[in-house]
Amino acid sequence: MKKLINDPDDVVDEMLEGMVAAHPDRLRRLPDTQVVVRDDGPLDGKVGVVSGGGSGHEPTHAGYIGDGMLDGAAAGDVFSSPTADEFEALIDACDAGEGVLAVIKNYEGDVMNFETAIELAEMEGVDVETVVVDDDVAVEDSLYTSGRRGVCGTILVHKAAGAKAAAGADLDEVRRVAQKVVDNVGTMGMALTSCVTPEKGEPTFDLGEDEIELGIGIHGEPGTERTDVMSADEVTDALTESVLEDLDVDGGEEVLTIVNGMGGTPQMELFVVNRRLQALVDEHGLETWDAWVGDYMTSLDMAGCSITVCVLDDELKELLGAPADTPALTRQ
Amino acid sequence: MKKLINDPDDVVDEMLEGMVAAHPDRLRRLPDTQVVVRDDGPLDGKVGVVSGGGSGHEPTHAGYIGDGMLDGAAAGDVFSSPTADEFEALIDACDAGEGVLAVIKNYEGDVMNFETAIELAEMEGVDVETVVVDDDVAVEDSLYTSGRRGVCGTILVHKAAGAKAAAGADLDEVRRVAQKVVDNVGTMGMALTSCVTPEKGEPTFDLGEDEIELGIGIHGEPGTERTDVMSADEVTDALTESVLEDLDVDGGEEVLTIVNGMGGTPQMELFVVNRRLQALVDEHGLETWDAWVGDYMTSLDMAGCSITVCVLDDELKELLGAPADTPALTRQ
Repeated sequence: MKKLINDPDDVVDEMLEGMVAAHPDRLRRLPDTQVVVRDDGPLDGKVGVVSGGGSGHEPTHAGYIGDGMLDGAAAGDVFSSPTADEFEALIDACDAGEGVLAVIKNYEGDVMNFETAIELAEMEGVDVETVVVDDDVAVEDSLYTSGRRGVCGTILVHKAAGAKAAAGADLDEVRRVAQKVVDNVGTMGMALTSCVTPEKGEPTFDLGEDEIELGIGIHGEPGTERTDVMSADEVTDALTESVLEDLDVDGGEEVLTIVNGMGGTPQMELFVVNRRLQALVDEHGLETWDAWVGDYMTSLDMAGCSITVCVLDDELKELLGAPADTPALTRQ
Repeated sequence: MKKLINDPDDVVDEMLEGMVAAHPDRLRRLPDTQVVVRDDGPLDGKVGVVSGGGSGHEPTHAGYIGDGMLDGAAAGDVFSSPTADEFEALIDACDAGEGVLAVIKNYEGDVMNFETAIELAEMEGVDVETVVVDDDVAVEDSLYTSGRRGVCGTILVHKAAGAKAAAGADLDEVRRVAQKVVDNVGTMGMALTSCVTPEKGEPTFDLGEDEIELGIGIHGEPGTERTDVMSADEVTDALTESVLEDLDVDGGEEVLTIVNGMGGTPQMELFVVNRRLQALVDEHGLETWDAWVGDYMTSLDMAGCSITVCVLDDELKELLGAPADTPALTRQ
């Protein structure tokens, strides 16, 4: 294993320290936790929006803390859920009295620990609502999931809910728009290579020199199909067709698309994928309202990408296009 | 080779198409070229700021086109300079009558072709000034360079010159602030793995399972030292000490730091490096005014990082902190 780390046991702690050190005017870490919150929060009169999950998906989630997105995020160990105690500390720190929306990627550990935390927080008088993101169209049920997995579409939930909260909406309204994104977004990913976790130090799964895997999860969970190497266009076709079929679009819809790098993929390749994606969107009679290309929801050093499509209405366009100022995403 | 590409001969063309498709309201490609310019340019009354070089360093350079940075950029083939004709087309397209500053990374091909292009443009009556960036402190002379190489510090030159031009300064002033960045910035990089070019399809250089290379260039040119794998802290110490020694800081200075990913490095690792970098800056009695962490100047899929330090004065702080709105860098 060759990685820019020190002791693998310290990697999450040191990463969070380095992240806060890069943004001391924006981010603050709760003492003795792996919870990061906005430095100036909680904001009076605003519903809190929080998320969290295992580490290794950076910039998810702490990179999306700031104006117009998250108020805070809990980081678990690599590919492991944060504890219920950490989720509770997160919720408490982000409640300004207007309640908190917890955005949960659909993994069993995250769901279970968030639920325990919410019970504890509610006993302390905090209103908490949840939305569970399950945008991965590749597989029903998986290694760590009942039902579909939550992947890159989660970032759009952060964005829409964060914008709604920033506009002064109440908790029910913030939850409603978050759920609207969940109901209208689909994602599918693929891997050229496995990720290598710092703890294990070797590939999570074996993939031959001439093989790729379609439908992969963000922890290297098995996908739908292992095939011979395909061209970028063939990969893009396979992922996009699966997503569009799941979304059941008729044509005429406006969409936001994301080509997401898995952590080890050069931007050059992501743009090559975006070229074909935009052609496919056009072929299906859809109109791209916005196209994001970059590393939003990664899987350590995995090479590969995912494609996300979100079908929009006027409300979602307003929220997804609203200003945001976070370390990983800025919109003016 | 496993990459998300189609025919290797088409990769630059398809990448540029995908980049423009992601930002149709910002970017425009000059027909039959690999030159990208801002869609609304050239801007009346503003000095043009342009750059260019081989592809494979994305988001460099076209990702920095927009308000407060570049007016346009020429992309060569992978790791190859754009032709003089393409540079000339770039300069012509970005001149609004106030002249153009060409920001050139110090590689022989880029310097030679830009110089030829400038002669041609000047014959057409365009005022052109140049600044050559040579921030890599690792080696004097190299595989493609007389003198030091131009690497990640180039982005700060784009930022400062772009901000000065946006403020309405004349060509001499824009050139002056660009040179001021060059005079006050240093960078050193390292690789955990080689990059693989689409054309060749195999590693550019061999690096053993237990080896890393310090002082590497952004095309995989040899560095200063090949060593056993080191911890993130040891790597950060080695790179940072070399940069600070070259900059000859006394303590008390304010600095902007960059931890730059080489293309295949997860953000988790970049933040671990930033943690140590900020501690070192503090130990040297310097004060971090801003800390950037991300992929700014990459080398295809190379795993590794570079560290950049720029010593600031009030003028540079104003320019580097000024608003910018580009695909790869946004400042409010």
